[in-house]
Amino acid sequence: MGRSPGTLLLKNARLVNVFSLSLQHTHILLAGRLVAAVGLEYAQAEAEQVIDLEGRWVAPGLIDGHVHLESSLVSPAEYARGVVPRGVTGVVTDPHEIGNVAGAAGIEWLMEASEGLPLEVWVTVPSSVPSTPLETSGARLGLAEIERLLAHPRVVGVAELMSFPAILAAEDGELKKVILAERSRKSPEGHAPTLTGPALQGYLATGIASDHESTTLEEGRAKLEAGCFLMVREGSTTRNLAALAPLLRPEHADRVGLVTDDRLPSDLLREGGVDFLVRKAIALGVDPAYAVRAGSWNVARHFRLARRGAVAPGFQADLVVLDDLHSFSAAQVYQRGRLVAERGRMCVELPKTRVSSAVSQTVRLPALQPSDLRIPARGGKVRVVRAIAHQVLTAEEHLEPTVRDGEVVADPSRDLAKLVCLERHGKNGQIGKGLVTAFGLQKGALACTVGHDHHNLMAVGVSDADIVTAARRLEALGGGLVAVAEGQVLAELALPIAGLMTDEPLEAVDAKLQALEAAAKALGVSLPDPYMVLSFLGLAVIPELRLTDFGLVDVRQGAVVGLFVE
Amino acid sequence: MGRSPGTLLLKNARLVNVFSLSLQHTHILLAGRLVAAVGLEYAQAEAEQVIDLEGRWVAPGLIDGHVHLESSLVSPAEYARGVVPRGVTGVVTDPHEIGNVAGAAGIEWLMEASEGLPLEVWVTVPSSVPSTPLETSGARLGLAEIERLLAHPRVVGVAELMSFPAILAAEDGELKKVILAERSRKSPEGHAPTLTGPALQGYLATGIASDHESTTLEEGRAKLEAGCFLMVREGSTTRNLAALAPLLRPEHADRVGLVTDDRLPSDLLREGGVDFLVRKAIALGVDPAYAVRAGSWNVARHFRLARRGAVAPGFQADLVVLDDLHSFSAAQVYQRGRLVAERGRMCVELPKTRVSSAVSQTVRLPALQPSDLRIPARGGKVRVVRAIAHQVLTAEEHLEPTVRDGEVVADPSRDLAKLVCLERHGKNGQIGKGLVTAFGLQKGALACTVGHDHHNLMAVGVSDADIVTAARRLEALGGGLVAVAEGQVLAELALPIAGLMTDEPLEAVDAKLQALEAAAKALGVSLPDPYMVLSFLGLAVIPELRLTDFGLVDVRQGAVVGLFVE
Repeated sequence: MGRSPGTLLLKNARLVNVFSLSLQHTHILLAGRLVAAVGLEYAQAEAEQVIDLEGRWVAPGLIDGHVHLESSLVSPAEYARGVVPRGVTGVVTDPHEIGNVAGAAGIEWLMEASEGLPLEVWVTVPSSVPSTPLETSGARLGLAEIERLLAHPRVVGVAELMSFPAILAAEDGELKKVILAERSRKSPEGHAPTLTGPALQGYLATGIASDHESTTLEEGRAKLEAGCFLMVREGSTTRNLAALAPLLRPEHADRVGLVTDDRLPSDLLREGGVDFLVRKAIALGVDPAYAVRAGSWNVARHFRLARRGAVAPGFQADLVVLDDLHSFSAAQVYQRGRLVAERGRMCVELPKTRVSSAVSQTVRLPALQPSDLRIPARGGKVRVVRAIAHQVLTAEEHLEPTVRDGEVVADPSRDLAKLVCLERHGKNGQIGKGLVTAFGLQKGALACTVGHDHHNLMAVGVSDADIVTAARRLEALGGGLVAVAEGQVLAELALPIAGLMTDEPLEAVDAKLQALEAAAKALGVSLPDPYMVLSFLGLAVIPELRLTDFGLVDVRQGAVVGLFVE
Repeated sequence: MGRSPGTLLLKNARLVNVFSLSLQHTHILLAGRLVAAVGLEYAQAEAEQVIDLEGRWVAPGLIDGHVHLESSLVSPAEYARGVVPRGVTGVVTDPHEIGNVAGAAGIEWLMEASEGLPLEVWVTVPSSVPSTPLETSGARLGLAEIERLLAHPRVVGVAELMSFPAILAAEDGELKKVILAERSRKSPEGHAPTLTGPALQGYLATGIASDHESTTLEEGRAKLEAGCFLMVREGSTTRNLAALAPLLRPEHADRVGLVTDDRLPSDLLREGGVDFLVRKAIALGVDPAYAVRAGSWNVARHFRLARRGAVAPGFQADLVVLDDLHSFSAAQVYQRGRLVAERGRMCVELPKTRVSSAVSQTVRLPALQPSDLRIPARGGKVRVVRAIAHQVLTAEEHLEPTVRDGEVVADPSRDLAKLVCLERHGKNGQIGKGLVTAFGLQKGALACTVGHDHHNLMAVGVSDADIVTAARRLEALGGGLVAVAEGQVLAELALPIAGLMTDEPLEAVDAKLQALEAAAKALGVSLPDPYMVLSFLGLAVIPELRLTDFGLVDVRQGAVVGLFVE
């Protein structure tokens, strides 16, 4: 009411009012972590600090509706340092990756590691750990564990129910995950790529409340009309905003939100997080007030984040002062009423990330010899995985293998490299072996412990000895990415947190990724983003041919298949 | 998906799509209690029953966002019989009245009595029982009880926090009620009549999420812009829809809902429940799809009622087939997928209401003699309550009393009647005594056990003996309304459930109310709705002068005052 002095008075703001979609010339009075009041009556209100914004815009802090923080390869604190200065004050993360490595303990570590940040991190409980029965993950999350995690106050839903064939088959276990979320008044989140028509109706009939996989306007519109909360995604690999921007309209009320899903360090540094979507939406012609609303209030409302997503009395004072609304250029960012970033830089100390035992030393390999990677020759053609540039998809090819001394071997002259998936959670030491083409690798090996979704050690190499060297190096690092040739490590990035993340700065990670890319190129690799592609070669839910520690998986059949075509 | 036969196929519907605000020509397939699918693909879908709607409209069942069911004077089952055939399939009720009489046990009875109805009844926990410290209520609801009730799955919030002076004074107990609601992910509901400017900002800064007391466009707009969920009310006494209709616009997304608050039997029978608001909003020029949305989805969304408020896959099949959208004329009503009403009549059996001991025989009076109502005379003027037609407000007047045999007495020639408030919960037998003008009563007495908010026995009379007769009759009936003259009961309505409700049909109640009104008129009463006015004369939160069992209350001072002006 202005009866006692506030902590901060922001005078002469042009407030993006997400309720009326108007630009409101007003004053904003903060009291500690909350917005106390908004109104022209407060021109002379007392406050510890008074700033005259001289007509600059104020928007609510943005909230990313669906992101896998692990994809940034950095700790939550480092991720915050990357996006908070851009005006992002909250994310809803799906810790699917760390859940696959370290289970509930990994998710709990992530919650601890994001406590007290100037970025609020809400969590949806991964619904599909492991993603398939054809892989060895580091952990399993059953219904009892999902239910337990749902009770946490920062948990706001069950994450993307991605096994849509199981859902359309009405498998009891999957449907129960929806019910568990509803019972705790939290959100059952969806993942329904390409679904329209009866399949979409069937998927949503379970009660699943959202989807972030739409790629066309028609698909997006069908989902919206069917009652789905439509998350418009612009990730690093998958970019759907241009196609779906026509749905970002005031008539669609709070039914559309903005999400990044996966953003790599280079994109975070150069484009940003969900702020990039607001900026791009405005550039695509979306009403700026509605674009801000889709990236703040609509997401807060979908997940029922109390007192978040707007600048209004009683709301948490998470807000961005903008030099320019159209380019969403953050001059200052306030979180919980405190100035946390200015002119693109954090101006508060970030808590140090503690790496607990639950997420460290997670790379546990069996005793490993180059001979363990031998593939005895037999007659006939073999299945070969064809990597595809800029795509998560792969293709299956049938080729005559190159055989030497009774062994199927890599053959750089035919662009055939050996592909290995090494169980690395210390569970059973299984080794999946196969061949891959399209990398262009001429010598040495590339390896990484980011291997969707089980995060076993994925390696591509023309030398078995170099694959073993790479694996050993990754074990010593506690996980990461490495390029090896002739027994020497050429470049590396350590990811000692669950083999997925580091607490190094984003800029350092980006530099090391560039060095890894350069090393791969020096080894002959012609494929862009070879580590990204390698990390997806074990993802046994996306067609066509994949390699897990169980061996080659034909995704269309949903079954392990032999290397040799029968 | 249409893979197995549904229970009902509604072909050729014009669906009011509350997500896209479009009228969608489509087919709707039900599977048991849920909507299985919506789409043109289902023209030939198999179902146990197929109905061709030939282009008739289908809307989601309406949900009333705030109502006191007790105001209907009938049981929840009878209320359902009144509104379900009109297209209402849900209400959010605030059992403030029965809570004041019978506490948590009364609220629990109401939940039991609304179990299994074709009308879903969600509950907000009354936040102000008792309403003031200047009255004896039948029960108190403390923080521990509010917290316990919040855990019930059908409880969706804490009801209207009406002690706004206490809230603006930041009283700890009131603020805790907001926090309790937030913690359980339920809604802290508001009640902020006339608040705008800094008082409104202060009220909402607590986290209170809604208001249903706006009477002007300016007030409504200010609340909407400040982040408040704006409930537009059209009750029996307070009618705000015409003033606020301009705010019912698609740009305001899901921020506006429709509520009835209080509707008397006659209005329920002649106008209806929240369906009346949809009809009237459309007549006032509101986009019909948006009017339906405000009366269904927006309310469901505000209270996070999972799978309610829309006709879409996975939603509960609560829907209305309309002969005409503009007049919202319900031809058929389906609830949980079952045809429950057709052409204005229920077509299913309603469960019989069981009256538990918690809510029966709640009228417990002290031994009472006419002499107990004597008011000894003193010198000087007395405070007199002036009743005001069609208003809840009263005025205070200072008059010379008529004195006979040393007693202040009623004086019909001066339109001065005796006003009595008799503690009737068996707590202390306190009797508040005073004088009232403007009724026009010439003989006898009127009395009722509906007496907001404490629901003590309120009586107005020119004969002390007739007041006692009326009170004794109400005790025998277990509560109700009565008109008495010369020791004879002229008309009565028994309200044996907590002294507030009956399980008789709405039509019978309406007829008895008319007989009571006629009896009052025969006794000289010139004031319209005398029982309604009488029932509010003890409401010690609305200016100016009231009478509780503590005595006269000056509401502006918030204190008990003497009958004689000092």
